[in-house]
Amino acid sequence: MKIINFETHRGKIQKTKGLLLCLFFFLLLFGNGLYAQEKNQMVRLAIIKVDPLQLEAYQVALKEQMNAAILKEAGVLTYYAVADKSDPSKITILEIYADNAAYQTHITKAHFLKYKETVKDMVTSLELVDVDLISSLNKTGN
Amino acid sequence: MKIINFETHRGKIQKTKGLLLCLFFFLLLFGNGLYAQEKNQMVRLAIIKVDPLQLEAYQVALKEQMNAAILKEAGVLTYYAVADKSDPSKITILEIYADNAAYQTHITKAHFLKYKETVKDMVTSLELVDVDLISSLNKTGN
Repeated sequence: MKIINFETHRGKIQKTKGLLLCLFFFLLLFGNGLYAQEKNQMVRLAIIKVDPLQLEAYQVALKEQMNAAILKEAGVLTYYAVADKSDPSKITILEIYADNAAYQTHITKAHFLKYKETVKDMVTSLELVDVDLISSLNKTGN
Repeated sequence: MKIINFETHRGKIQKTKGLLLCLFFFLLLFGNGLYAQEKNQMVRLAIIKVDPLQLEAYQVALKEQMNAAILKEAGVLTYYAVADKSDPSKITILEIYADNAAYQTHITKAHFLKYKETVKDMVTSLELVDVDLISSLNKTGN
């Protein structure tokens, strides 16, 4: 048992909380943009046409692949999958991998191979467009 | 001055730090995905062809607009701008706004109007594609 100044210790707790909260909100707001221009990232657009009759099943398989890859692979960084409002069978996916090696690893994984096998008769065309990231800015929740 | 148990207080500080750090890393890793399917978000692909001779100036204007919009407008949530590697004058921008009202406000802002004025003789074609977000997953740094 020591005799200490309670106010000083409460101050330290508050200061610790304050600093961590500041860091926390700063990174939530701006963290995504700060490292967006990493030199070796592999960025790609996949432009996919899906059989309209199998669109629902395709989306299930796609989401399963995306979720597994993001959770299990450190080098799979970002997926945004969108469907044209005027033609939901046209799907565009923005994919960001840490580097080319991360992508090469990705396409050997069980979840990716399962996806490819599942959708092989659902996808009617696939265009892969290698792109350079000009800039990305992203707030919390997207 | 109070007599208190030093070990207990150090424990509280550690516990506070630990909890905040856990929350911090959890949200950094998964925060972006959690709210990605907001019902009213307006999501769009802008597909832009730029005069190759003015590409550098166009990118400067684009980044200035993106930075200002993200910083100054609560309803502008996400921008990813990419250029085809095989033809860097072909640019695709994924844009996410909180809702249609946020977008309508956006296009009245000084930074947006300045961008439109600056690039009016740089952009040779512009296609705006309204899309639905199927899924987005995003790790720290993207």
